[in-house]
Amino acid sequence: MEHSKCGCDANNSFNAADLSQFKFENGLIPAIVQDADSKEVLMFAYMNEESLKLTLETKIAHYWSRSRQSLWKKGETSGHFQHVREIRFDCDADCLLLFVDQDGGACHTGYRSCFYRTIDGKIVGEKVFYEKDVY
Amino acid sequence: MEHSKCGCDANNSFNAADLSQFKFENGLIPAIVQDADSKEVLMFAYMNEESLKLTLETKIAHYWSRSRQSLWKKGETSGHFQHVREIRFDCDADCLLLFVDQDGGACHTGYRSCFYRTIDGKIVGEKVFYEKDVY
Repeated sequence: MEHSKCGCDANNSFNAADLSQFKFENGLIPAIVQDADSKEVLMFAYMNEESLKLTLETKIAHYWSRSRQSLWKKGETSGHFQHVREIRFDCDADCLLLFVDQDGGACHTGYRSCFYRTIDGKIVGEKVFYEKDVY
Repeated sequence: MEHSKCGCDANNSFNAADLSQFKFENGLIPAIVQDADSKEVLMFAYMNEESLKLTLETKIAHYWSRSRQSLWKKGETSGHFQHVREIRFDCDADCLLLFVDQDGGACHTGYRSCFYRTIDGKIVGEKVFYEKDVY
């Protein structure tokens, strides 16, 4: 993340089976989710160790819902699952990047990406479903 | 971020001048940084209100360094500045997405992106400079 003083070694080899090598802060690690093909950033969420393990095992993205304080299998309500093709991590090992094939839309508002607005409020995202049809 | 129960309104219009509409947690908001052209995710960092204001004013990315507990103008040591083309925010207004033109590399290790490793430790990133030449 902050890469000016992290002291990480670019040649380090991580074993995904040893999740202790990732830096969970208060039990959580942030995860950026990107469309594997278009590279559009779809959403941002947090994982705990259990959700990361489940994601690795099932190749379906699981997160930790901070608002509900519970394990969250993305798509369990909407059917909009994320099929994980690859996971990367940053120089500090404290942020994950997921490449996924997204069923439907990532955002509960019906947009394909949660980042559907510019900072001046312009809607730029693609609407792919209507909330009332899904939730 | 978590978009299943955030209750945000897709039609809300935000005024970038009113930064109070963004949700800073302990004074910070996470920022994902993406190459404006290639869409490669370059890094992940945090902004406080001051760094966001400076970024909006100067169009050069500024962050808050949690390790140094100080304002951080990205590139001030390396010369690898990030020229911000656009900023988006997510449905919960608690995460930012920057589209930038990156001078040199985003990662202090010399890789173009901080996310240069897969979860099983394979190096997949592009090396664009050598640390000793820059720091």
